Amino acid sequence: MSHPLFEKHQATLDAAVAAIHGRGYWTPYPEMPSPKVYGETAADDGKKAFEACLGKEFELGQPGVTGWTSPERSPYGIALDVRYPVSTPAALVEAAQAAMPAWRKVGAQGRVGVCLEILDRLNKRSFEIAHAVMMTSGQGWMMAFQAGGPHAQDRGLEAVAWAWAEMSKVPAEAVWEKPQGKNPPLKMQKHYEIVGRGVALVIGCGTFPTWNTYPGLFAALATGNPVIVKAHSNAILPAALTVRIAREVLAEQGLDPNTVTLAVVDKRADTQALATDPAVKSIDFTGSNVFGQWLLDNARQAQVYAELAGVNNVVIESTDNYKAMLRNLAFTLSLYAGQMCTTTQAILVPAGGIDTDQGRKGFDEVAADLAAAIDKFLADPATATAVLGAIQSEATLARIDEAGEYGKVVLASRKVEHAEFPKAEVRTPVLLTCDAADEKSYMEERFGPISFIVKVADGAAAVALSERIVREHGALTVGIYSTKAEVLEAMTEATLRAGVALSINLTGGVFVNQSAAFSDYHGVGMNPAANASYSDAAFVANRFRVVQRRYHVA
Amino acid sequence: MSHPLFEKHQATLDAAVAAIHGRGYWTPYPEMPSPKVYGETAADDGKKAFEACLGKEFELGQPGVTGWTSPERSPYGIALDVRYPVSTPAALVEAAQAAMPAWRKVGAQGRVGVCLEILDRLNKRSFEIAHAVMMTSGQGWMMAFQAGGPHAQDRGLEAVAWAWAEMSKVPAEAVWEKPQGKNPPLKMQKHYEIVGRGVALVIGCGTFPTWNTYPGLFAALATGNPVIVKAHSNAILPAALTVRIAREVLAEQGLDPNTVTLAVVDKRADTQALATDPAVKSIDFTGSNVFGQWLLDNARQAQVYAELAGVNNVVIESTDNYKAMLRNLAFTLSLYAGQMCTTTQAILVPAGGIDTDQGRKGFDEVAADLAAAIDKFLADPATATAVLGAIQSEATLARIDEAGEYGKVVLASRKVEHAEFPKAEVRTPVLLTCDAADEKSYMEERFGPISFIVKVADGAAAVALSERIVREHGALTVGIYSTKAEVLEAMTEATLRAGVALSINLTGGVFVNQSAAFSDYHGVGMNPAANASYSDAAFVANRFRVVQRRYHVA
Repeated sequence: MSHPLFEKHQATLDAAVAAIHGRGYWTPYPEMPSPKVYGETAADDGKKAFEACLGKEFELGQPGVTGWTSPERSPYGIALDVRYPVSTPAALVEAAQAAMPAWRKVGAQGRVGVCLEILDRLNKRSFEIAHAVMMTSGQGWMMAFQAGGPHAQDRGLEAVAWAWAEMSKVPAEAVWEKPQGKNPPLKMQKHYEIVGRGVALVIGCGTFPTWNTYPGLFAALATGNPVIVKAHSNAILPAALTVRIAREVLAEQGLDPNTVTLAVVDKRADTQALATDPAVKSIDFTGSNVFGQWLLDNARQAQVYAELAGVNNVVIESTDNYKAMLRNLAFTLSLYAGQMCTTTQAILVPAGGIDTDQGRKGFDEVAADLAAAIDKFLADPATATAVLGAIQSEATLARIDEAGEYGKVVLASRKVEHAEFPKAEVRTPVLLTCDAADEKSYMEERFGPISFIVKVADGAAAVALSERIVREHGALTVGIYSTKAEVLEAMTEATLRAGVALSINLTGGVFVNQSAAFSDYHGVGMNPAANASYSDAAFVANRFRVVQRRYHVA
Repeated sequence: MSHPLFEKHQATLDAAVAAIHGRGYWTPYPEMPSPKVYGETAADDGKKAFEACLGKEFELGQPGVTGWTSPERSPYGIALDVRYPVSTPAALVEAAQAAMPAWRKVGAQGRVGVCLEILDRLNKRSFEIAHAVMMTSGQGWMMAFQAGGPHAQDRGLEAVAWAWAEMSKVPAEAVWEKPQGKNPPLKMQKHYEIVGRGVALVIGCGTFPTWNTYPGLFAALATGNPVIVKAHSNAILPAALTVRIAREVLAEQGLDPNTVTLAVVDKRADTQALATDPAVKSIDFTGSNVFGQWLLDNARQAQVYAELAGVNNVVIESTDNYKAMLRNLAFTLSLYAGQMCTTTQAILVPAGGIDTDQGRKGFDEVAADLAAAIDKFLADPATATAVLGAIQSEATLARIDEAGEYGKVVLASRKVEHAEFPKAEVRTPVLLTCDAADEKSYMEERFGPISFIVKVADGAAAVALSERIVREHGALTVGIYSTKAEVLEAMTEATLRAGVALSINLTGGVFVNQSAAFSDYHGVGMNPAANASYSDAAFVANRFRVVQRRYHVA
């Protein structure tokens, strides 16, 4: 039953399984783009490999190709012009179904071994993928490398570890022997086979084309399901490179490369056809509430794992480190220009101000000081462009432009020139104040670098408002700053009721918008922002079934 | 964190966790109603305790009681007249929500300990519950004791074991320490709390009011969810006794007894109101396709675990033990007069007959021989009444009466007089033959003692038809009789594709309609007859979430 790739990567797998249960810091994929780790020529090789993709057809050898399309536009303003094959939805589904029996028969160890080999090769190609992520999503280089490369690989490995933890508990066979008093026992041989639920569809997003795709991709794949990766139309290349690597590994192992395919569509109806195909049994989706809700309403034949919009929020009740708090929040609001599903949108501050180590600070003072902290942090254009990246979509640019309508501007957005990419759309955050009653302003997701300092009656009102926001509009992250045990306790209880992860008094090098694989449960799956978590048992256990057979033995 | 009830039952729990992973035979609840096991007075005490419930109000101390109702009619024709409290759906949901925080705070060990104590007391009350099951469902005494008592308790314990296996992997806390090169590491303390998804609704069925209720009840309860048990209107007493015992244990532990409540409704709209209440996050349902589909379509706020109708089938291709095969099938078709969700409805036999150890048997010969085997098995009225039990519903009686319309009768149903219960509605099975083309006859569930011997072209056609029946109409069980390895292999592959449990060449004391806890996965959750299995990781993992909090530590 053992498989060479399983044996090759077993140490990594064992450590990953220990990590998901221990939940300390761990990773096999170094996050520093260092030549010592990735090799002296890795950076240069990766850049060249990325550039070699541009302006060409990206051949994948997939079935049912009816044409080629090239929809990506770089937020950095460079020409990409990669042409991708467009396959009919029916051809992709049919090919996936045909690949499924062999993928089942290779067994849990074989599937896990193949997944780990794919992840290992993705890691070695981190520079190439980082360029693809940066140039399609608009992320800054360091984030593109880390979140697009090793951190995404961590999330993929975490899903494989959970899948293995669950699958390895199912024995291949058992003898069942029931005593019958003085008569001979009843004795049966039983076999248990792990069977994937069916074709899996993984729908990526435009901002994190690998980080948000790998959990679903590897969870579905490891548990026996062929996967169709439907990339976001503006972030195809990172997914295409991933799929190509997966197909190479599959083919080398004598498996059907169509176990993993890339879906690039030139009309929305094709995505809908894929999502509602009766053979598609699971859908992983990161994106808008509108399409997410459409999937939940229409793709009723599938289990849908959806990460949607939310209104992440932070309560500031008091602090014993005012400067560090402001610095921490300034970084959170600036990173990737707020284009993270975890970025704080609403900062809830008592109308009467807060107690700090620097004395009492009024509401307006807190707002002005946070604005100043952001301004100072982004004063140097080189830092600013590195941290902010570029704005991924026209819609976000439009939201920045109209943000002044939603509140009083305490910090306006600036356009920053990028030294290397003159056409890059780089913007600093806009910071607004408003009253808690102005719910239409801050209580829907305004994706991008748009945040509100919301004036609330007092700390208790802030905690209550945070809970209501999470319950009604969802959130992936909330934070609190307070020096009072009873306030922290109330906030903790509120997050347990509403179901959201809480960061308390972050003043150092960890930020509320960051989520570490193997340790942090990204999303909780209990509020409207997400119906599943990366990764836990629930994220993998429902993707396979156990089919048994039994017969008498002597 | 440890809890006295957890410690009290830890040996049982450990053995149960070992059993769900090893899947050999195991149980802590003896299935023989023996005085040596259950005590010299247990049988008598149980009968008296049951009788003491009759003709009285069944007080539970629940909130929102608006009246009393007494809808049960015994298939054995005795007067029950137990009057149950009718609570408003809103009052039950509100009470469940109020009970939830304390149920979370008692922790996984506390919840599991309480569940194990409830199961232990249910086991000690097996006689009383068996009488309640027998007199409401119509089961024969031995089945009512075994399936209604120890086997149902096994299924409850199995669910608790799975819940514990999943929850115990989540650490209460962890220290996350990330190296920062020459700088001090980033260090965070993290806490992980298991939180139930919300109020659970468990909707029981009229035929197995404990066996089909305990998996959902205990899976939901152990994972942190308050449970409302909505009993079938004709099988309330077994659920009411169960709920009362649960409430007693909860109250003794200083927990809110409304963590478990009984819903008895006098109008269907109340069940619908419960099922669609926004606070209800999971529903376990066993019953008809019509109401099951209504739940899936309308209770969209909840995860629905549904066991619905199916068309269980057996392929007879050849056998090396003709007599034992007929005896085995005769028992399956007779047990509880076919009123099991696992009873075989369609027996697929080649038109040209089958090879057996007694020579070639033609299609009509097989049908006649099976009819004779049933007739012989049920010839003695004492055996017949013990095995058949009574017919649970008027609808099943009507189906038996009209069965002749669906095919050629090879064995007519007989009414059997019950020596002890003169008004009992006891019926023997009706056996029909029909052609594979007569799909409208055999290809929908005809619940009760109505089975078809279906004439198919040959063995390959039988395997293909079995697969199509499972895919299109669902099945909890299929069987095959064949002496040929290639036929068994084809059937195995068909069941792996369609997702159904297979029993091969059953000729002894195990029957296709039986499913043993800890070893057999009841249902697979992959075909239309059920979307979940009792019990596996998927049955429990999605019933809770992990909510974390984190903060810097030095």
